[in-house]
Amino acid sequence: MVNGNDLHETDKIVAAENPIKSPGLYPDPEKLLVRDTIDTAILKRLTGRSCISVAQFDKEFVLELCKFAALLEATEIASSHPLDGKIVITAFFEASTRTRLSFESAALRLDARVITISDGKTTGAAKGESLADIGEMLNAYGDLVVMRHTATNAVEQILEKLRLPLINAGNGTGEHPTQALADWYAILKWNPQLKGIVSSDEKINLGILGTPGSMRAVRSFLEMSLLFKENIRQISIVSEMADPLGAILSEKLKHEHIKPVITNDINDVLSDLDVIYMNSIAYLGDGYRTLDTRYRLHKNSQLRKNAVVLHPLARLDELSTTLDDTSHNLYFTQAHGAVFIRQALLITLLDRFDRLPDDIPVV
Amino acid sequence: MVNGNDLHETDKIVAAENPIKSPGLYPDPEKLLVRDTIDTAILKRLTGRSCISVAQFDKEFVLELCKFAALLEATEIASSHPLDGKIVITAFFEASTRTRLSFESAALRLDARVITISDGKTTGAAKGESLADIGEMLNAYGDLVVMRHTATNAVEQILEKLRLPLINAGNGTGEHPTQALADWYAILKWNPQLKGIVSSDEKINLGILGTPGSMRAVRSFLEMSLLFKENIRQISIVSEMADPLGAILSEKLKHEHIKPVITNDINDVLSDLDVIYMNSIAYLGDGYRTLDTRYRLHKNSQLRKNAVVLHPLARLDELSTTLDDTSHNLYFTQAHGAVFIRQALLITLLDRFDRLPDDIPVV
Amino acid sequence: MVNGNDLHETDKIVAAENPIKSPGLYPDPEKLLVRDTIDTAILKRLTGRSCISVAQFDKEFVLELCKFAALLEATEIASSHPLDGKIVITAFFEASTRTRLSFESAALRLDARVITISDGKTTGAAKGESLADIGEMLNAYGDLVVMRHTATNAVEQILEKLRLPLINAGNGTGEHPTQALADWYAILKWNPQLKGIVSSDEKINLGILGTPGSMRAVRSFLEMSLLFKENIRQISIVSEMADPLGAILSEKLKHEHIKPVITNDINDVLSDLDVIYMNSIAYLGDGYRTLDTRYRLHKNSQLRKNAVVLHPLARLDELSTTLDDTSHNLYFTQAHGAVFIRQALLITLLDRFDRLPDDIPVV
Repeated sequence: MVNGNDLHETDKIVAAENPIKSPGLYPDPEKLLVRDTIDTAILKRLTGRSCISVAQFDKEFVLELCKFAALLEATEIASSHPLDGKIVITAFFEASTRTRLSFESAALRLDARVITISDGKTTGAAKGESLADIGEMLNAYGDLVVMRHTATNAVEQILEKLRLPLINAGNGTGEHPTQALADWYAILKWNPQLKGIVSSDEKINLGILGTPGSMRAVRSFLEMSLLFKENIRQISIVSEMADPLGAILSEKLKHEHIKPVITNDINDVLSDLDVIYMNSIAYLGDGYRTLDTRYRLHKNSQLRKNAVVLHPLARLDELSTTLDDTSHNLYFTQAHGAVFIRQALLITLLDRFDRLPDDIPVV
Repeated sequence: MVNGNDLHETDKIVAAENPIKSPGLYPDPEKLLVRDTIDTAILKRLTGRSCISVAQFDKEFVLELCKFAALLEATEIASSHPLDGKIVITAFFEASTRTRLSFESAALRLDARVITISDGKTTGAAKGESLADIGEMLNAYGDLVVMRHTATNAVEQILEKLRLPLINAGNGTGEHPTQALADWYAILKWNPQLKGIVSSDEKINLGILGTPGSMRAVRSFLEMSLLFKENIRQISIVSEMADPLGAILSEKLKHEHIKPVITNDINDVLSDLDVIYMNSIAYLGDGYRTLDTRYRLHKNSQLRKNAVVLHPLARLDELSTTLDDTSHNLYFTQAHGAVFIRQALLITLLDRFDRLPDDIPVV
Repeated sequence: MVNGNDLHETDKIVAAENPIKSPGLYPDPEKLLVRDTIDTAILKRLTGRSCISVAQFDKEFVLELCKFAALLEATEIASSHPLDGKIVITAFFEASTRTRLSFESAALRLDARVITISDGKTTGAAKGESLADIGEMLNAYGDLVVMRHTATNAVEQILEKLRLPLINAGNGTGEHPTQALADWYAILKWNPQLKGIVSSDEKINLGILGTPGSMRAVRSFLEMSLLFKENIRQISIVSEMADPLGAILSEKLKHEHIKPVITNDINDVLSDLDVIYMNSIAYLGDGYRTLDTRYRLHKNSQLRKNAVVLHPLARLDELSTTLDDTSHNLYFTQAHGAVFIRQALLITLLDRFDRLPDDIPVV
């Protein structure tokens, strides 16, 4: 039974060369920077503060941060050690490898140090300690906290005592603002014209496959999209829920005079969409649930020729790997760019613009 | 049901500014340093050795280490990278975020590198490996080991083979010597006169709410307090156990000619106490138990005007948050100072006094 | 009951001095370097590639890598920061403290940064994410991945998308090539003559106590041993399995014209062996099993005077601690040397030969 016969095929493994290039669309970040400088005065509005909600941002700030991320992606600045001497605490009371490693990579690339809570089950919280007390503790240990938590009110709780800048990396069914920044960074690299105001026929149709009212990443994406409403012709929401927005988001859209198409039939809208945002894994109070699973995108989906697909990942079946090698795949770019948008945010919150090399276009 | 209605209130969160200052008493560490230098010859008694028990210390050593911690707290020395090239291994076979992060922050601030075992369940120990073998393994991986373990004899076991300096960060129901150092560092900052011998009417009444015989932090605190016995008028122990000291501690106190007041009624002693040390979470052999829960301190407790409260944290109900904003709160200072006392200890054990800046008063 | 009586014996602990020197045989690594330089052209065959199977190596490569490791063990090169700016990702989907810390120590000693997945249960994989997608994610986060996984086909899966060099640190019942490198590094330090071709009476008898067909470390050791077949008189395999090699390994040995002695009675061969490799813990598909437990080595085993014992550790009862203090103990050297062989491999894969100090004999 255990005889080595079928245990491995060495030759096959050895033959497997690493792939050379990531599949999908990789727009050049420099296109975001053409004839442009980065205005740090706009970024410094957030310096020393926490980043907890999309509601803190305006379009101007998002644009400057995305341009700053593009600069970091296009330039080798690690050797200037911009976060030298800073300690970033990644406090993931809700475990998440993808987001945690993304922040840790961003911090370490800039020469910060990192201390980590990778699992809420091993903390004082497990003994009954309050988040406020944990916040007081973290004050002594570092310079900035990145927190993910299963409770939506965790941000409010830790801010009772935390005096360090906090980045909300996902709070229950609440928000995930740095995901939304990564999303729009990818969209802006794909279509840099969206930085300004485009003409009527260049406006985009935005589609969301998911339930913004109960999925934090989708909610934050939708809220940030409102900052770019002049460039959006139509927002469509495809969800299996009867009321996918909920009262708060519905009110916001009404206030912005935006009337989304809401449907539970993907075929109603798919062939009209330019940008498609999808997600299926939602943290709902007590654990993960998979929502909106009947909507699947794959190679044979009726996508517009130039349509791009975003997904915060991890994915399950809803996003077929048959799309990976197509030019609809903007989701890998989106994932890679997240490291740079987080680098930009860390430098901004910790005010280390003065450590950047002299020859980069930051004013 | 999941409709976004009550999921979060962005405006409230955004409005929540970070608090400016930690509540409670924050005595200036420089007061510990007035007209004084740090005698490294005394500290070097421990260089290259392990720190496993309060019994290793005398008053002279504790004073020099606390003064050194005060210097590190009052001075910016990180830029001299005193632990450059050193690897600190935090081996927490009993998970503890607070103590682990405290040591990791201390090490990283001094430019050491850190490798971590944050959960004993993922180690070779889980496969049945002996602690002696783990010690032999760690010899190859770093320069110093910080260990916490659920077994009281873990220190002896790992020292069978470990050749690196070991810091005992809590061994079962045994000791927690660096907690006691952090405790007395806070007390000495609060009352620097205790460095010397105070007059009869300046002696302090020390109260312990907890069971020293079975709580390692409380035991280590009591043992270290004996080094300052000339300045202590009375030690009171409030516990729900009939014999809260046990035979060994009782014998020690007898040997020191100290006759503690032992009571199970907090009201017998509370209004006489100057320094109150409390704890309720105890690791007893197979898991955590909460002891002495009937003794609660809060805003309306009959505390002396200038009394201060210490607690190793995490806390549950026994220490009310209503004390946080009062000048009785020395426990946040105590927690913050722990990082600096651990920095002082790391530099001492690893003999990196020569990496300190020239202009600091170390001789 | 909880009275402190028997909780600890401070005096005993304090008295326990750290041991001075590791027990066992510690051959001088410099003996591997006598009148020799390291030919980096040979090492660079692997630069930028992955290290996943012993089948990738020839004797020449193994020799150069072992000499390079010896150089790193004998020389202080950390201050030249050879991996400055590089991020090593240790992705241990199958938890393993020993191997993970060994790689992390190797990376940190060379000034790389490390980000860690120490437990597969907290990753996106736990939500159903594919290893290919995880590979795509890791492309964005670091410069090299060290992976351990319970699944034998995990290497193939992650290489579908991973573009970074991958080091296979154990894949199910497959391979563990860096363990084999550490094994032969220890053997070559013990007997540097094995670098060349020894005379007939200097050939060694090699014994394996374990089941190569189902234990990845044992398999990789056996496969690497074939590279040194001119210096091996006889290979003996002692196993409780009827067919300890399985079809693939049997075929390989046949192809190399090697006819191993296979027995289930250790006494048939023990007194003839020069090098004994043993292991008992095997990961078999769904968890750990202990194999070949009836074969125990201890102080009174009938070992040749100069015989040496290797063991990848962790050990259980099969390898008695009574051998630790004898000159048969090469297993501690083997464990310590693993850090240096991994340093050599990291510098090789990441092509940082140019960061080595000028005065070391690398050409």
